[in-house]
Amino acid sequence: MVNQVQTVDDTWRRCSKSDSSGASNSGGESSKESSRSSTPVLDTDRTDRLRDKMRRRTESGDHWFSLEFFPPRTASGAVNLISRFDRMGSGGPLFIDVTWHPAGDPGSDKETSSMMIASTAVNYCGLESVLHLTCCNQTKEKITGYLSKAKRLGLKNIMALRGDPIGTDWEEEEGGFNYATDLVKHIRCEFDDYFDICVAGYPTGHPEAQSYDEDLKHLKEKVDAGADFIITQLFFRADTFLKFVRDCRAIGITCPILPGIFPIQGYQSLRQLVKLSKLEVPEEIMRVIEPIKENDAAIRNYGIEHAVGMCRMLLESGEVPGLHFYTLNREVATMEVLRQLGLWIEDPRRPLPWAVSAHPKRKVEDVRPIFWASRPKSYIYRTQDWDDFPNGRWGNSSSPAFGELNDYYLFYLKSKSSKDALLKMWGEELTSEKSVYEVFTSYIMAEPNQAGHKVMCLPWNDEPLAPETNLLKDELAKVNRRGVLTINSQPSINGKPSSDSIVGWGPPGGYVFQKAYLEFFTSSENVTALLQVLKKYEPRVNYHIVNVQGQNTTNAHDMQPNAVTWGIFPGREIVQPTVVDPVSFMYWKDEAFALWIEQWAKLYEDESPSRMIIKYIHDNYFLVNLVDNDFPLDNCLWQVIDDMFELMPAVLLDIHSLY
Amino acid sequence: MVNQVQTVDDTWRRCSKSDSSGASNSGGESSKESSRSSTPVLDTDRTDRLRDKMRRRTESGDHWFSLEFFPPRTASGAVNLISRFDRMGSGGPLFIDVTWHPAGDPGSDKETSSMMIASTAVNYCGLESVLHLTCCNQTKEKITGYLSKAKRLGLKNIMALRGDPIGTDWEEEEGGFNYATDLVKHIRCEFDDYFDICVAGYPTGHPEAQSYDEDLKHLKEKVDAGADFIITQLFFRADTFLKFVRDCRAIGITCPILPGIFPIQGYQSLRQLVKLSKLEVPEEIMRVIEPIKENDAAIRNYGIEHAVGMCRMLLESGEVPGLHFYTLNREVATMEVLRQLGLWIEDPRRPLPWAVSAHPKRKVEDVRPIFWASRPKSYIYRTQDWDDFPNGRWGNSSSPAFGELNDYYLFYLKSKSSKDALLKMWGEELTSEKSVYEVFTSYIMAEPNQAGHKVMCLPWNDEPLAPETNLLKDELAKVNRRGVLTINSQPSINGKPSSDSIVGWGPPGGYVFQKAYLEFFTSSENVTALLQVLKKYEPRVNYHIVNVQGQNTTNAHDMQPNAVTWGIFPGREIVQPTVVDPVSFMYWKDEAFALWIEQWAKLYEDESPSRMIIKYIHDNYFLVNLVDNDFPLDNCLWQVIDDMFELMPAVLLDIHSLY
Repeated sequence: MVNQVQTVDDTWRRCSKSDSSGASNSGGESSKESSRSSTPVLDTDRTDRLRDKMRRRTESGDHWFSLEFFPPRTASGAVNLISRFDRMGSGGPLFIDVTWHPAGDPGSDKETSSMMIASTAVNYCGLESVLHLTCCNQTKEKITGYLSKAKRLGLKNIMALRGDPIGTDWEEEEGGFNYATDLVKHIRCEFDDYFDICVAGYPTGHPEAQSYDEDLKHLKEKVDAGADFIITQLFFRADTFLKFVRDCRAIGITCPILPGIFPIQGYQSLRQLVKLSKLEVPEEIMRVIEPIKENDAAIRNYGIEHAVGMCRMLLESGEVPGLHFYTLNREVATMEVLRQLGLWIEDPRRPLPWAVSAHPKRKVEDVRPIFWASRPKSYIYRTQDWDDFPNGRWGNSSSPAFGELNDYYLFYLKSKSSKDALLKMWGEELTSEKSVYEVFTSYIMAEPNQAGHKVMCLPWNDEPLAPETNLLKDELAKVNRRGVLTINSQPSINGKPSSDSIVGWGPPGGYVFQKAYLEFFTSSENVTALLQVLKKYEPRVNYHIVNVQGQNTTNAHDMQPNAVTWGIFPGREIVQPTVVDPVSFMYWKDEAFALWIEQWAKLYEDESPSRMIIKYIHDNYFLVNLVDNDFPLDNCLWQVIDDMFELMPAVLLDIHSLY
Repeated sequence: MVNQVQTVDDTWRRCSKSDSSGASNSGGESSKESSRSSTPVLDTDRTDRLRDKMRRRTESGDHWFSLEFFPPRTASGAVNLISRFDRMGSGGPLFIDVTWHPAGDPGSDKETSSMMIASTAVNYCGLESVLHLTCCNQTKEKITGYLSKAKRLGLKNIMALRGDPIGTDWEEEEGGFNYATDLVKHIRCEFDDYFDICVAGYPTGHPEAQSYDEDLKHLKEKVDAGADFIITQLFFRADTFLKFVRDCRAIGITCPILPGIFPIQGYQSLRQLVKLSKLEVPEEIMRVIEPIKENDAAIRNYGIEHAVGMCRMLLESGEVPGLHFYTLNREVATMEVLRQLGLWIEDPRRPLPWAVSAHPKRKVEDVRPIFWASRPKSYIYRTQDWDDFPNGRWGNSSSPAFGELNDYYLFYLKSKSSKDALLKMWGEELTSEKSVYEVFTSYIMAEPNQAGHKVMCLPWNDEPLAPETNLLKDELAKVNRRGVLTINSQPSINGKPSSDSIVGWGPPGGYVFQKAYLEFFTSSENVTALLQVLKKYEPRVNYHIVNVQGQNTTNAHDMQPNAVTWGIFPGREIVQPTVVDPVSFMYWKDEAFALWIEQWAKLYEDESPSRMIIKYIHDNYFLVNLVDNDFPLDNCLWQVIDDMFELMPAVLLDIHSLY
């Protein structure tokens, strides 16, 4: 959060929609957008608004937290921040917010822009997000353009700030944005009630304000202009915040006021922040910190202890329903504070087995093909242009128009590991297909490969095995060793409680089910044997087998989707969030085969033996998926694979089992 | 089937669609209809056509049968015939056909008309049906009107016949319908390929034909004009039919030829039929029958034996994939022949837990509210004007526009029992609410009431308890005795095979599930206690409680449907055919309350004590439904009712349990 000052100014009260009618393209778009915002669809969205969620949590006496991040400087920083979103999102923040860095081209399509980071948080990580926006030195058209773009990207919440003037000689501008209040009014004027708006509060008064009381009046103006809640600047004593809240209430500010919590994480970062925000660090804190200023760990431990103590006082005061954390893009301290407070939900209840996107238009989405289970961001990217999403039944509204892979997409979804790290994991030099089998096996077993490096990811799996898949570890390792290169699987589940810590999802009091699923690449020799074997397993096992050219064999003759994950809940229709869909499988196979080349083969020199081996697999192996429809019985898919190996000609078997 | 003669005539070849452009309303409608018949919807219907079903069954080497009925003379005859359709439909006929009786106003809306009987078979009994149509002495406009109406009612198949001329002085009419061939051409001309068309064949030649060979040529013409298959006149020797088939094939008739089987059921009916069809009964049959002509049972036994022997020869010949039975609207003989042949499917696999309507527009329907479970015809009637049907999720396309009850509807759905029989079952005179409790209890227990009469039905249940409900018999009787008047219930089921003979439905290899459901009327005192008790069962039990005025209490706060029957099958999405839907419950309650008055109270004199008692219940009781969401556990709904009784004030309890 950046400093901000304001005075009473009526300029913006005169704003009306006709103001923007003669404006630039972005202004024109805003008019169109704001007329759309009164459609019934958005009306039904209302209960899902951040301010309503906040109100409901507050009314229920529940405590919650939110997390602030700033946009990274580099592309690889962006990839890391997105992973951090996933990890910290799993703790259950009510929302995250992303600061606005005017110097960093914040509204652009660059992967490091505030806009793109916030959009990724919403769309790909499924996090309720607040985008900061500063208005200082900006034209109305520019601001309207940013807001329209934010809306288009699915962002629903704005933190309205003045921002820092460029240079020191800032002066009020006639008809321009001089104060955050102007921005709040502009948002309400151009976008009606579409956005939830947050504004900044200063527990010790804004440094540029004439007085603490004067600053409170400005805050009141921001709220009166249409802000929904307040987040405060950081502070060091619970009393500071509690007095501030009392003073706000006394002058008629009734909206939620969230305390900004800054766990001290190091001597330098504290100094820098204090300087920027013109705050004074209380002497009792300086007395502890000064002697240990070279010891980062000690300072961090103190910072955690101090933050926990302050947060406890705030929560116990009864005035504070939720805590807002300035994370400085770091995980450890904030997570530790939240854990000690009992606010970090170690095993958050998942509404569905996959992470739900927070984009408003995907609200009804409740079924997806299983193929992208380990690549949900890719699925979201490739379906971002869909007009509506399957709800209840894949067959009803599935669109065959999957978006193509492209560079931008590959950026967001590329491996988090460096080329060097990948080579260590996947082999500096491959000598045969067997080297590849080994890589898969090491990944499954979470064991070091022959060169002594742990294989932490594969092109199809950016993370180590999911806990659920881990249940199948031994079986998976056994078949990977023999050239059944598994990239996706799930065990069968016959009615576990929806609260189950490993496989549970959905509301309490329900039961979840799964059909066993196995997806792998394997050689054409294996496929020949497999097809022979599968005759014995009709109609128990459904299969789809395809090579890179699209030669396709299946026993799903009517091309219907097969539900492989479903849940039964009190008072609801059946939820069936995961299907094996024959149509989308053909789109997935393009992606699955491409990853061999894009992520693996290209690590090696052109024409090198290593690259040729991967290329050979890409060109000749088949992608197979198998579903065991008989979920109450023991999974028969391992038996299918065993039978396949038994059927292999002795000579081939020899080669393949020589491990 | 009625006799028919034909000669070569080219009149109708000149027919073109413009012919009907200046025609009456019905002709105009036909043009509209036929242009609709080329829409993609119908194209996707093609595989479901009777001729395709016949082809597939034939190709698979499967044997099948069909049943012919004639329209009844009286309204109560119609009600009985519809029950017979249900019973004989359960044996699995490929289709039934309904003859056309020109003297009986066959195309009218009367309950006894050929048109209405065929429509009921399709729409309410879910039977693939063929409507006969005779053209003799009819105008083109009239015929087109009949065909349009048939199409509108969901009929897809026509048996095209000439019919018997009126009087004896019949002469060919210029431009009129002189032969069945003319009718076939007219149907194809006006309705393109919409209808599947059947024509009649005469194994011994038509009695009015110049010769057997001449008659074969006429048959060839009918087929060439567009008929899809042939049903033959009855015959007495397998050889007669087999020779006829060989002769047909020899002159190039390639379509299916179904033998018309007539099990001899009595001396008089045989004589009459033979006279009408101008057939000769072979001497070996007469020799057996003449001596026993006074003994109906003996003749029927012989008829069954003779028909079975002939059918066996036909089926063994390899020329006969299916058998067509002239039932004469009787059940016993035909069913016995079919049983001995092994063609009667005693326990036909149900595609869904409720009987699927055969109307083409209801093809995708696969979910219904549970409330009409015992009154499926009422549900079909009340939703007949819907444009599309819920598919997969009730919430997606449920229409709140349920049709109103009316007289026509009440006719079709009225009790099969006479007023007299109903009074015997439900009480000549009621003395208190307890008399009513007794009636319910006797119905549940299938035991005689105090007057010694078995209670075979209730206003809400036209049939004795379903086998599935019978599982709950003792529990149901216990609560009915105490004034919990149950009208609908199902036990919980946790994954029984879809082939289970009592609760199974859907394709093989699947599993079916249910949540326990209980629906009943009960007093407001009971409801007060019940609401108290239900607090303990949150969120396990969902409830809806409503009185005749529509005062409604529920804990289904988001008004979502609750799936209470579902199935998991190989290679499919989840099928959830039955839901408790809060919205449609309000339509159902109107019907459920109305039945107290319409079917029960009105049996008694106005102002009589008996009528006042029923009226009191109607005015003061509540309709309650309960769902136990925890299907893997033991059904808790009985415990809920027990808890309710325990909570009743001692004095009330005394009164209510004095049984």
